[in-house]
Amino acid sequence: MDADTRGEVLKRLAYIEGHLAGVRRMIEQDSYCVDVLKQTYAVRRAIEKAESMLLSGHLHHCVVGGIESGDDGVLYELVELYELANK
Amino acid sequence: MDADTRGEVLKRLAYIEGHLAGVRRMIEQDSYCVDVLKQTYAVRRAIEKAESMLLSGHLHHCVVGGIESGDDGVLYELVELYELANK
Amino acid sequence: MDADTRGEVLKRLAYIEGHLAGVRRMIEQDSYCVDVLKQTYAVRRAIEKAESMLLSGHLHHCVVGGIESGDDGVLYELVELYELANK
Amino acid sequence: MDADTRGEVLKRLAYIEGHLAGVRRMIEQDSYCVDVLKQTYAVRRAIEKAESMLLSGHLHHCVVGGIESGDDGVLYELVELYELANK
Repeated sequence: MDADTRGEVLKRLAYIEGHLAGVRRMIEQDSYCVDVLKQTYAVRRAIEKAESMLLSGHLHHCVVGGIESGDDGVLYELVELYELANK
Repeated sequence: MDADTRGEVLKRLAYIEGHLAGVRRMIEQDSYCVDVLKQTYAVRRAIEKAESMLLSGHLHHCVVGGIESGDDGVLYELVELYELANK
Repeated sequence: MDADTRGEVLKRLAYIEGHLAGVRRMIEQDSYCVDVLKQTYAVRRAIEKAESMLLSGHLHHCVVGGIESGDDGVLYELVELYELANK
Repeated sequence: MDADTRGEVLKRLAYIEGHLAGVRRMIEQDSYCVDVLKQTYAVRRAIEKAESMLLSGHLHHCVVGGIESGDDGVLYELVELYELANK
């Protein structure tokens, strides 16, 4: 992962932690459950967006490097990641 | 939502924030992307578990109350929640 | 489920079977894997749309009926459905 | 995709069409909505399993070939596929 992507992912994750802290405050203030759930859905989508950036970095570096050096273990890992992503 | 469930959900969300902070440290320490992604998947699953608890509280309180008072708006909201949950 | 909704869901499911048969033809004709995958994703989204209609019918009939007769088993089932929906 | 994988995917898709036809019969016979939904979930999981096989074939053939010939368009496609998979 290049330094720019890494910095961007770290910034997003820190933001998501703040979002979750906000969700906790909503619950403490007895917000309507449906509004709370919509926020936790938004948090999960934000995590998925960070995952896309991580995956992209992984593909362009480790996977390309693996294939170029004849290691197809990276491909089995990708299928596993795909299957795990939404289990 | 009863006080016990609320306390349990708050505890889980605080734990998840700590988990995300741990993921940021993994990235700062240049951990393997696949290991990082497996952790963000685990974070999302933990959020989904908290959502189940929130939904259960919502059903047993707001939805039952809504139906008993003849308000079927809560049912349309549930379909919307179901559709939003994984978009 | 009322007769209109049932008719609509049945029509959609028959259409989806045709869509899947089309995906099989794509594979037999050696279409590009990425194009095939985009079609199977579309099939899954179409099934989810039919599920929304089924869930809506279920909520407005069985769940309302269950709550009115004091049976909260329908609520536990809803949480289970929500958890199963994307496992 | 090699011939064996292709044959296996085609067999699975044909089986899934039969499964969907069975779901239609359940609805025509007025089965309990929750039971119907559990079957449509099973259908979607079966489609996801076929997708894993398609993805694996794609990775081992097109992606490896693309990288070896210096075409990184296949990597951008993979990120797009990952993002589309559960939208």
